[in-house]
Amino acid sequence: MEVPLALDRAAAAPLHRQIYDQWRAAILGGRFRRGARVPSTRAFAAAYGVSRLTVTAAYEQLVAEGYFEARRGSGTFVSSELPDETLRPIGVPSAAHAAPPRIRLSRYASRLGGVRRLVVSARSINLSKVSPDLTRFPFPLWRRLVSRHLRRASPDVFDHGAQPAGHQGLRAAIAAHIARTRAIRCSPSQVIVVSGSQQALDLCARLLLDPGDEAAVEEPGYPGARQLFAAHGASLRAMPVGDAGPSIDALSHRTRLVHVTPSHQFPTGVSMPLARRLELLDWARTHAAVVLEDDYDSDYRYSGPPLPAMYSLASGAGVVYVGTFSNVMFRGLRIGYLVVPDELIGAFTAAKWMADRHTTLLEQAALADFIDEGHLDRHIRRMRRLYQRRRDVVLELLGRSFGPGVVVRGDAAGLHLTVRFPRAAAISVRAERRGIQLSSTALYYLGRPPRSEFIIGFAAIGERTLRAALSSLAGPAR
Amino acid sequence: MEVPLALDRAAAAPLHRQIYDQWRAAILGGRFRRGARVPSTRAFAAAYGVSRLTVTAAYEQLVAEGYFEARRGSGTFVSSELPDETLRPIGVPSAAHAAPPRIRLSRYASRLGGVRRLVVSARSINLSKVSPDLTRFPFPLWRRLVSRHLRRASPDVFDHGAQPAGHQGLRAAIAAHIARTRAIRCSPSQVIVVSGSQQALDLCARLLLDPGDEAAVEEPGYPGARQLFAAHGASLRAMPVGDAGPSIDALSHRTRLVHVTPSHQFPTGVSMPLARRLELLDWARTHAAVVLEDDYDSDYRYSGPPLPAMYSLASGAGVVYVGTFSNVMFRGLRIGYLVVPDELIGAFTAAKWMADRHTTLLEQAALADFIDEGHLDRHIRRMRRLYQRRRDVVLELLGRSFGPGVVVRGDAAGLHLTVRFPRAAAISVRAERRGIQLSSTALYYLGRPPRSEFIIGFAAIGERTLRAALSSLAGPAR
Repeated sequence: MEVPLALDRAAAAPLHRQIYDQWRAAILGGRFRRGARVPSTRAFAAAYGVSRLTVTAAYEQLVAEGYFEARRGSGTFVSSELPDETLRPIGVPSAAHAAPPRIRLSRYASRLGGVRRLVVSARSINLSKVSPDLTRFPFPLWRRLVSRHLRRASPDVFDHGAQPAGHQGLRAAIAAHIARTRAIRCSPSQVIVVSGSQQALDLCARLLLDPGDEAAVEEPGYPGARQLFAAHGASLRAMPVGDAGPSIDALSHRTRLVHVTPSHQFPTGVSMPLARRLELLDWARTHAAVVLEDDYDSDYRYSGPPLPAMYSLASGAGVVYVGTFSNVMFRGLRIGYLVVPDELIGAFTAAKWMADRHTTLLEQAALADFIDEGHLDRHIRRMRRLYQRRRDVVLELLGRSFGPGVVVRGDAAGLHLTVRFPRAAAISVRAERRGIQLSSTALYYLGRPPRSEFIIGFAAIGERTLRAALSSLAGPAR
Repeated sequence: MEVPLALDRAAAAPLHRQIYDQWRAAILGGRFRRGARVPSTRAFAAAYGVSRLTVTAAYEQLVAEGYFEARRGSGTFVSSELPDETLRPIGVPSAAHAAPPRIRLSRYASRLGGVRRLVVSARSINLSKVSPDLTRFPFPLWRRLVSRHLRRASPDVFDHGAQPAGHQGLRAAIAAHIARTRAIRCSPSQVIVVSGSQQALDLCARLLLDPGDEAAVEEPGYPGARQLFAAHGASLRAMPVGDAGPSIDALSHRTRLVHVTPSHQFPTGVSMPLARRLELLDWARTHAAVVLEDDYDSDYRYSGPPLPAMYSLASGAGVVYVGTFSNVMFRGLRIGYLVVPDELIGAFTAAKWMADRHTTLLEQAALADFIDEGHLDRHIRRMRRLYQRRRDVVLELLGRSFGPGVVVRGDAAGLHLTVRFPRAAAISVRAERRGIQLSSTALYYLGRPPRSEFIIGFAAIGERTLRAALSSLAGPAR
């Protein structure tokens, strides 16, 4: 039997490992018939000029793993107890290796789109980013809070001690926070902590939608919600958004779930007036549909008092509320929450457990302290002032540089506003030439989008840069 | 119009807020007909003995939010522009408030069980816990690594900078780690970071199973996988586990996904021999089924060399590999990973994005350093020695105290083993009387379980405590 192994004394892998690896590859590659006798350790050691101990170590492993068979008194053989098909080439990629069979994917998979990624050049000013200003987050403070829990190393945080629905302290802190800021009255047990608002929507889709059910979405609206419902097999019903929010007339008796962003509609930024909120709640009650209130950026309000959450208007009946800390803290923090009616606590807890057991507890514990010690409120107050100044700069520049043809919406709250320019094509061309990343709202429409509507995310950009970008967009003649 | 508001000067809420709150509650409670005139700010202020400015602030908010309507020259009214049904009681819980309609849940929800929670008394010794020893994890070191990234506050970690499939450095570190420890050759792009192995299984169920498809599971087996597949609508096929692993004869031509734990079968602890691995791979190839290799605790092996991962045997064709850091680090760390064939990278990335955007990056970045700087390998080596000593104590005590009738399985690896006692009833009674938490494997069977089989999780318990617990279980006469 010829054993053409290539041992390399200079390699990092020890020789016994090389011998093992190469025998294994050769057997899996079908180079030996089963039952074939292999050289004795003595013969092999002599042939390759290595110590017999080294060879014995490799052989023992090959025997232990079933590649070799040692028969007492007669030597060592390629295992014959392997099943019939074993010795066909399967383990080692080679020319003879057939292409792997295509794996059949589920219908869920076929309904998933790919992941869209915006490529932002490093030198561009990105007006399309709806994001808080990361540079203003108090990381030293956050580090202290996280470190505190790392120092304690409490099993409540580092073992599976906590409930799937979240860290108890955080659930209580969230309940108190939204009672203060959103007039939502709920017990901590109704708060289900999740890994960001996307997971909140996913759990809702699992628990509240069957394939073929109808989910109503705002038009334009948040693609992350719409794609998710579609992936779960729901059919989508578009609710056109006007200045008074999404149209309720568009709903049908088949609609089972209504996803809305009433505080600051995404992307238009309009706020749903009280009358529309009540009308929608009433519609949902009559049709036994669930309202999914996605309150993704209610914390920044610049003009007028915040409207009460739909959840609080309905005292929670038939409403599932979704909140997130991504927009008030930083987007890499994957912590969001649901507030669910009592009757759904069990189902949401079980669904969360099934999805990923629980959200990372270290950051949950730190966030509980961040809220309880007043840091969150302080940070929001500071950022509200900062973002309002930035918003004002945008409004001032839009008014001054583009004239009366410009229509601004959604500037009363949030991290972005939308704007319609009279000559959209010229704006787009100028943005591209001058390295300004500008996003049309076209992405957010299921149907035909308006041609000239853009998002301006102002929160993460300094005033000077905002001025430069908007002046530059306005063109040379000013 | 009578306005019986109860203002409380001692309350924390400012008076204008109290006025606003109570008007709002009264209107939502249906106490006023729409269009009804409300007292002027002057009259209200006089009636309640508060400043007119206070009342004006409250009224302005009520007008802004649409509860009140100010008609120039004629006064203020309960809004008449609210829709017809508005003034029915909806917002304020009261006796007149009808019970909320029951929310109709999805079929997914109906297939979810509740969350089982084991109640462990604080004074008991918990032999049922399959867990690493949290007290031996180097938290000071981990704190340093986490702090390092908190100090840098890099947008790669705190913004959505990273790809949904995970932190680039971590994906590369994992690929290198499993090449070293599991002989798995894959590119970092094939590694999809997820929030623990449960999420890995969930993504597989979404992408690889349609409702009605058949998923094969080990019998006994891991309930977290089985419940998950069932919740996704799959029908389960049980593969009885013998000493040579799960039986392949049990599979049918309808089986689309086969979930196995070949390194250290859960819960029996048996290791699937090479022949069975190859046979299963061959079966899956012939039937175009996917093998889901759940390698939840391969890192601790005490006897014999580790067998190659099925993924490496098949060079990844038709195999999805699942790994986790919960058992080598600590269970609160919600980081696991999938290794998927090239053709599935896109689908898994999209599914992960849809599920929760990405796993928390702070801990991903720290974990990348933990692996790259050699801490993980060192920790595993240390824990392997420690757990082996603890395992040896269990084996010694079982042999000495219970005699030859005891059958031990699964002691070659992992954090637990299983044991069959000859007189199970007596053991259970003694465990309960002496405060020892002992779990039968009955939970892990779909069919009829053996009566006398127990799990002993030894890794998180000190030698002295193990000795005390097992001696105590063995009864008074020793």
